[in-house]
Amino acid sequence: MVAQSTNEELMQIPQSEKPRIVVIGGGFGGIKFVKKIDTTKFQVVLLDRNNYHTFQPLLYQVATAGLEPDSIAGSLRKILSYKKDFFFRMANVTEVDVHNNLVHSSIGSIKYDHLVLACGSVTNYFGNKDFEEKSFPVKQVPHALNLRSQILQNFEKAVIKNDPEEVQSLMNYVVVGGGPTGVEISGALGELKMHVLPKDYPELNLDKMQIYLIEGKDKLLGGMSEKSGIKAYQYLKRFDVNVLIGKIVKAYDGKTVTLNDGMQIPAQTLVWAAGVQGNIIEGIKSDLSNDRRYFVDRYNKVKNHDNIYAIGDMGYMASEDAPQGHPMLAPVAMQQGVLLAQNFSRTMDNKLLKAFSYTDKGSMATVGRNKAVAELRGGLKFGGLFAWMLWMFVHLFLIVEFRNKIVIFGNWLWNYFTYDRGTRLIIRPFKRPPSPKEQVHLKEEIAAEIK
Amino acid sequence: MVAQSTNEELMQIPQSEKPRIVVIGGGFGGIKFVKKIDTTKFQVVLLDRNNYHTFQPLLYQVATAGLEPDSIAGSLRKILSYKKDFFFRMANVTEVDVHNNLVHSSIGSIKYDHLVLACGSVTNYFGNKDFEEKSFPVKQVPHALNLRSQILQNFEKAVIKNDPEEVQSLMNYVVVGGGPTGVEISGALGELKMHVLPKDYPELNLDKMQIYLIEGKDKLLGGMSEKSGIKAYQYLKRFDVNVLIGKIVKAYDGKTVTLNDGMQIPAQTLVWAAGVQGNIIEGIKSDLSNDRRYFVDRYNKVKNHDNIYAIGDMGYMASEDAPQGHPMLAPVAMQQGVLLAQNFSRTMDNKLLKAFSYTDKGSMATVGRNKAVAELRGGLKFGGLFAWMLWMFVHLFLIVEFRNKIVIFGNWLWNYFTYDRGTRLIIRPFKRPPSPKEQVHLKEEIAAEIK
Repeated sequence: MVAQSTNEELMQIPQSEKPRIVVIGGGFGGIKFVKKIDTTKFQVVLLDRNNYHTFQPLLYQVATAGLEPDSIAGSLRKILSYKKDFFFRMANVTEVDVHNNLVHSSIGSIKYDHLVLACGSVTNYFGNKDFEEKSFPVKQVPHALNLRSQILQNFEKAVIKNDPEEVQSLMNYVVVGGGPTGVEISGALGELKMHVLPKDYPELNLDKMQIYLIEGKDKLLGGMSEKSGIKAYQYLKRFDVNVLIGKIVKAYDGKTVTLNDGMQIPAQTLVWAAGVQGNIIEGIKSDLSNDRRYFVDRYNKVKNHDNIYAIGDMGYMASEDAPQGHPMLAPVAMQQGVLLAQNFSRTMDNKLLKAFSYTDKGSMATVGRNKAVAELRGGLKFGGLFAWMLWMFVHLFLIVEFRNKIVIFGNWLWNYFTYDRGTRLIIRPFKRPPSPKEQVHLKEEIAAEIK
Repeated sequence: MVAQSTNEELMQIPQSEKPRIVVIGGGFGGIKFVKKIDTTKFQVVLLDRNNYHTFQPLLYQVATAGLEPDSIAGSLRKILSYKKDFFFRMANVTEVDVHNNLVHSSIGSIKYDHLVLACGSVTNYFGNKDFEEKSFPVKQVPHALNLRSQILQNFEKAVIKNDPEEVQSLMNYVVVGGGPTGVEISGALGELKMHVLPKDYPELNLDKMQIYLIEGKDKLLGGMSEKSGIKAYQYLKRFDVNVLIGKIVKAYDGKTVTLNDGMQIPAQTLVWAAGVQGNIIEGIKSDLSNDRRYFVDRYNKVKNHDNIYAIGDMGYMASEDAPQGHPMLAPVAMQQGVLLAQNFSRTMDNKLLKAFSYTDKGSMATVGRNKAVAELRGGLKFGGLFAWMLWMFVHLFLIVEFRNKIVIFGNWLWNYFTYDRGTRLIIRPFKRPPSPKEQVHLKEEIAAEIK
């Protein structure tokens, strides 16, 4: 059990004459910042609740049994092991005390001279408790594992049910949100339906498996062009996905999804990919954008604060070239991380700071086997096999750690040529009522923890 | 939520004119039996609480961050997908009603004509509640993942502690039991200490990490020769493992291990590999051996029962060639599974049954990098690099599914040449007291479940 304390300096970080930068979050932005920061000028401490970096763009493949969780995660200590005067601490940040320049966490408190917020985003349920409690998000490794277990467990249950309505609700999948994550998950579910599950469940009629993708706006892939949205729509149709455009999920009770037009879909699995919001931190008072991101200037400094910076999804930077702010994507976070690190050095060298300007190299989304859409810088738009291969190449290139590149490439080859998925473990237990003995034990545990 | 019921035939198994064999457990014995049973003569139903087969001999590598959990498990549906008139059901068996030939489970009940018990063994804590609650067993995939998280978390904690005694207790590992599992885990921990952890934790002095292997008898690897035991002892020394022979763990309070000679080792991690016992099932009354296995005749029939069979670890078969019964090893289970399936056919064909006789092809245990011991049929004993390579070859050969063979081989190559371990995720949450909101939620959940 980790000691809880608000005493200063419990994290065993040595004192240093250099100013200390505390970075919260080892995502795309946080890692890039740490890699680029000059630790001869600063002492750097990275805090993350996990000991690993998650390659979020491939989480959906973990959720659909295509990749092992280990292959899309990288040990933060290992990735950054070459840095001197750098310290990683696995810690859950609970609050920031801006008056005393202190970060409070599950493992104690730490003083900072500069604070870099790189905590990314969390799922946005738009205040709906039912969505939050009963749907499946896909933002973290445990989420993806949970969804994978749910999908496989649904089929194990469907095999033993004789009520056709219940079987159908187990075989219906509703994915909310037509952005890249929603499109990718629906497509992957379509592939499972067509190629993988029929072999595993000869007793079930897999034609009954229905995948619904619900998008509130009038097109898919809102961040991309109309043309790409239409292509994605057409590709999804080929993977047997029912795409419902311009519809909004109004309610979900864990059994039935109700849309705004009154349509009802019985489904025991609702995947929530309808939006994200800034993962803001207790104690930092500042103006927030509609999607709860800190307003930052073009140097990523948080409004009303002198020594707090927010990069990536956490910062909302409106400028002439991006009046609506930048998209919440890895490249933005990475570029901001690099620039902020360089600007820290510029400050020390009494040089002029450089304002951020986003270099958009393009965007992509994959739908499934041989099918993706891509838009490159300069306006080139294309789809199909070539976009799919480009998507794979870029993701292999971007993922951290050489070992992961090999493992993922190997998995993809295997999945492609065998029409199989290698990782079909249900590793959460069957939900069952606790036995009387377990109930007593659970109550004691809670009592002890409350005390 | 799966319906609880004791009604018959809730599992949606079609009626058949053929006799029905229900097999409990998809381990080495259960799978072999199902593969070999003639389903033109019998309808076969396999029940397992997991949807996967676990390759237990490599669990220790999952526990020590060497392999992904997915690579040592195989989807039971996939392995057996070619069988006709065969049904797999993921179910937790709760009780057998021998008078009515019924198996009760978490997903309902099923009638059998013949019942094959292949549930293997569970960890034997010799009745000590402290050992059961506070130590780490290594029998199932979730166990191995839990131990992996514990090991990595210990080091994350050690980094932030300044009490030298607490740091030491986080860096001490006590492994109880000098059989193959205990030897393999200690050796793998030694490899972590020497090659992997120093790179991850430059702030810690890894020389402080102490691994203790405790064995009650006067030699390691009790199932093998004296010579192999001594070799294993020497190899473990080279991996910096403290081997304590002829000592017994008397008590463990979660913080300090107390041995029978009064020696105390402060250690927050105690790995329990000191013994197993039959995984017996509620409702089947029969004589049990000292290690709680059903006495079976040489046709694996359980004493006092006409249509219940126990194979592998669950059956205790004493015969002239094995007066103490057979070792609880995969080859015994597999050979018994094959023979029992053949004997079922012989019965139908009115042929004479064949009595079981164990073909011992030898045994092996690996200690670590380039070091293993092996004893082959015919008396050949050897150790070192060649034994280590043979060990790897045999395990690659035995593991189910071609994909797993490739993945494991690739991992081993990687681990060998990089002195690295690829899978260092801590995927259980930091233990922390529930928030007031969570406490309320937990209580409601329990109340609802009890109701």
